[in-house]
Amino acid sequence: MTSNDARLRERAAAVVPGGMYGHLNTAIFTPGFPQFFERGDGCRQFDVDGREYLDFMCSWGPVVLGHRHPRVEEAVAAQQSRGDCLNGPGPIMVELAELLVDTVPSADWALFAKNGTDATTQALMVARAATGRATVLKAKGAYHGADPWCTPIPTGTTEANRADLIDFAYNDLASAEAAADAAAGDVAAIIVTPFKHDSFADQELAEGVFSRGLRALADRVGAVLILDDVRAGFRLDLRGSWETFGVRPDLTAWSKAIANGYPLAALTGTDALREAAASLYTTGSFWFSATPMAAAKATIETLRDEDGPARMARAGTLLRDGLREQADRHGLAIRQTGPVQIPWLAFAEDTSLERAACWTAACLELGVYVHPWHNWFLSTAHGDEDIAAALERTDIAFARTAARFGAA
Amino acid sequence: MTSNDARLRERAAAVVPGGMYGHLNTAIFTPGFPQFFERGDGCRQFDVDGREYLDFMCSWGPVVLGHRHPRVEEAVAAQQSRGDCLNGPGPIMVELAELLVDTVPSADWALFAKNGTDATTQALMVARAATGRATVLKAKGAYHGADPWCTPIPTGTTEANRADLIDFAYNDLASAEAAADAAAGDVAAIIVTPFKHDSFADQELAEGVFSRGLRALADRVGAVLILDDVRAGFRLDLRGSWETFGVRPDLTAWSKAIANGYPLAALTGTDALREAAASLYTTGSFWFSATPMAAAKATIETLRDEDGPARMARAGTLLRDGLREQADRHGLAIRQTGPVQIPWLAFAEDTSLERAACWTAACLELGVYVHPWHNWFLSTAHGDEDIAAALERTDIAFARTAARFGAA
Repeated sequence: MTSNDARLRERAAAVVPGGMYGHLNTAIFTPGFPQFFERGDGCRQFDVDGREYLDFMCSWGPVVLGHRHPRVEEAVAAQQSRGDCLNGPGPIMVELAELLVDTVPSADWALFAKNGTDATTQALMVARAATGRATVLKAKGAYHGADPWCTPIPTGTTEANRADLIDFAYNDLASAEAAADAAAGDVAAIIVTPFKHDSFADQELAEGVFSRGLRALADRVGAVLILDDVRAGFRLDLRGSWETFGVRPDLTAWSKAIANGYPLAALTGTDALREAAASLYTTGSFWFSATPMAAAKATIETLRDEDGPARMARAGTLLRDGLREQADRHGLAIRQTGPVQIPWLAFAEDTSLERAACWTAACLELGVYVHPWHNWFLSTAHGDEDIAAALERTDIAFARTAARFGAA
Repeated sequence: MTSNDARLRERAAAVVPGGMYGHLNTAIFTPGFPQFFERGDGCRQFDVDGREYLDFMCSWGPVVLGHRHPRVEEAVAAQQSRGDCLNGPGPIMVELAELLVDTVPSADWALFAKNGTDATTQALMVARAATGRATVLKAKGAYHGADPWCTPIPTGTTEANRADLIDFAYNDLASAEAAADAAAGDVAAIIVTPFKHDSFADQELAEGVFSRGLRALADRVGAVLILDDVRAGFRLDLRGSWETFGVRPDLTAWSKAIANGYPLAALTGTDALREAAASLYTTGSFWFSATPMAAAKATIETLRDEDGPARMARAGTLLRDGLREQADRHGLAIRQTGPVQIPWLAFAEDTSLERAACWTAACLELGVYVHPWHNWFLSTAHGDEDIAAALERTDIAFARTAARFGAA
């Protein structure tokens, strides 16, 4: 019998190039992923064939409190009943900007947009306006969005789109210093993610010497330090993901988890960059809509009131410890990298991802949604019992993987 | 007594650079505009001080059926109760792509995004991927969004951001041909709006010889013809704004009115460009969210079932005729330009916009929201009685303008 998913894929193939595109395109995953989804509830998602998943991707980050969170939905409904896209912002824009300034020590102001890419692109513009320079230093392979200047697959872009960018190696301060030297006084900005979360590779936490060194380097060459907290923001530390290092960026780009799935991005920055930020012209038809801002305020307040990062750390630690015990017991060598709230699991000696594909497919079949080559995401909706239920199934998936590939 | 708007402006000044930014920033309008809005209902908007406006800006385009349209809100509520931002799109993405392909003769496929700028930027990428060329021809002064390649105020951008662009003059086919010659075989695309809707200037409808000539020019040099229908789309002709000329673009960028205020953009294109479109990597965290797509399907179906463009044309014609009669009667020379659904009114001999500022301020005070230097927008919520009510007030505004400036 043809599944609903298969029927939708066939219809999509006729009216969407390639049938699907972007980061949710299952054609670029390993086999076994459903493409179309019907419903979300807490930490569970349901595909169009009624299959239920304990979800560890959280829609690739946005859903940080779980689907249909009452406090967020209530704020959304209240705002929607009054107005959303109007001739100007609502009071909620001011309230949300105030909340960000109160929450994030490096934030003296906020601008809002729709895509994470909007915020990282705006960040470059603010830095260039402030410094009158062009060059931006970035870590090789880091994802900063999908605008022509940063899309990881350069098809359809020109060399000019990627002009004035110099790569350094993540966690390698000397390479960043060399990049700055290469720019010979023209460094407008250093843009960096709070940890290394490149796809297909072990995640790497930032070293203190690297994060503090980038701060010092930016200061020394008169450049703007941009933290791209789009992926990690609001999961590790509500104050910003480098606050634990005592490193405060000049600009921070936010999106994904900011509004529990409602479309919003933000750029926050320091007083020193306020005038430069005010000198730009960036805008969008829906950037001032009130509903996603109401969702963001409710989301951030809930994360604050419930100590969301700590709850996610608890769930992520239970998951990591459980997976470790299971893999050891099945004689499978794995690496778990990144912060526990944004984890990833890789199998040793698995460069062609055969073990990962096998394990992931088994997890999906058993109703656990994980990804073979992109980091996962926890939410505050993942309770102890959800992690326990997921681990019952991952244990079976490990058994199947061990049966096929033997002890690693 | 301090108004709510003034109090919010003061708070915003502390936490938003310049207090506000982008196209809804009243600092770049003439005096008298409220900055913050509370509520929308049909063709009416209410500011934070409870003042009611008959609205002729429609949130700068998005609101095409009026605020809180029952059919759209019902579709949104139904989708939201199931899920919005999930691990994949919902069936609604396929349904919406099918609807666009059915509605727009030049559309064989659709991609979705959030900002109009996303769609115009994607269009350039598809054209460059398809042709292997870099140069894009565009009309001087035309607005195609606010990415670094197209923002009208280049602060914070680099020369490289605007590389490979050559200007021509709108409605001047010879200048477009000269631009193509200057590119010497490297023309990837010609991007053009369906009519000239630059700010601060009379709007100009496209001439048939120009639109058909651009189509022939694109074919002759092997370039992609991109219609930027972000601003005009779904108000003039649901099939695309150049269908009346018999001109079918290779790519069309859509946003604004596509979902009655919910955040969505689309790029549609022909079979010949399907493979190129599938070869790109563009994406965004919220691009596959189901709710705005549900809103878009309900919006387009409603516009189709109610012949929305004709309804807006009726309202726009009543407005234009009424304003003409009033201005004549008050001895004020005005020019009304652009399609009646997307009108603009300018006073003669008013290069410093003194008359426009006076008239607009009077309109605002009397509860009619219009703009002095940006085109306006009609919606299907503007009934005959709303136009009549607006005209009662514009008559008073003309009287005040005539009293101050005399007969022009």
